[in-house]
Amino acid sequence: MALEIERKFLVNGEFRDEAVDATRIVQGYLCSAPGRTVRIRTRGGRAYLTVKGSAGPEGFSRYEWEKEIPVDEAEELLKLCEGALIEKTRFIVKQGDHLFEVDEFSGENAGLIIAEVELKSEDEQFERPAWLGEEVTGDHRYYNSFLSGNPYSGWRC
Amino acid sequence: MALEIERKFLVNGEFRDEAVDATRIVQGYLCSAPGRTVRIRTRGGRAYLTVKGSAGPEGFSRYEWEKEIPVDEAEELLKLCEGALIEKTRFIVKQGDHLFEVDEFSGENAGLIIAEVELKSEDEQFERPAWLGEEVTGDHRYYNSFLSGNPYSGWRC
Repeated sequence: MALEIERKFLVNGEFRDEAVDATRIVQGYLCSAPGRTVRIRTRGGRAYLTVKGSAGPEGFSRYEWEKEIPVDEAEELLKLCEGALIEKTRFIVKQGDHLFEVDEFSGENAGLIIAEVELKSEDEQFERPAWLGEEVTGDHRYYNSFLSGNPYSGWRC
Repeated sequence: MALEIERKFLVNGEFRDEAVDATRIVQGYLCSAPGRTVRIRTRGGRAYLTVKGSAGPEGFSRYEWEKEIPVDEAEELLKLCEGALIEKTRFIVKQGDHLFEVDEFSGENAGLIIAEVELKSEDEQFERPAWLGEEVTGDHRYYNSFLSGNPYSGWRC
């Protein structure tokens, strides 16, 4: 059983010049029930089906299972997904010993930028980049599965 | 896109002596939203993840996508499934040019026996076995995904 330990933050500032990689991601959810999500993702010419379990009480750890699948099959499966598809560019930024994944959303979630850092344990220390804003780990509104049903463009209405 | 065309019937009578194969199946649903189900199944030492789309208006055709996955991973994924797991024995019965899959449920769905025949088109003719009962094609109560949340043992209360 693979556990994912990560902390999630909003981004306030310019991070793009520090990025070592940028990839376009399109993803959707076959389901996003409490306790389990099934995600279809295309990313840089490859595609994946991912199952995630529920987060722990503080939102850090989630069971995650992933399989690569053919891109044309992923495109068929994306048509079955609920809600809106999520479109974003993922930038990779190195800071000290850690890699930050910074997702800049487009489409209906334009304006939202979220950074995630993966950790080996829930209390592991890491160097904070200057552009790292408020922590939103465990806040369900920033789950991509929530955004597919409740896009960021509607939050400010 | 693979389409599954099948008709489904209740079973009234003895079919086991005619079976050419019998396999134990355990399955669960990561989700069973209208329009899409994601199923995890173990069957005779192998395991599969299957996505099914919604049925056509008469319940005959459903989009279906399936990948074989390792059995140990399927067992982890079954723990994430909603509702009760479905346990059944699948018998294969040849009748004329067709194969009938006859599912005899156990556990919370004991007493229920359903036969399915796969067809090349929605109007293809087939020879009816003597034990074939009422047609229930398209009746959502006989979907395994419905049974996992509403087991047959509770129907008669």
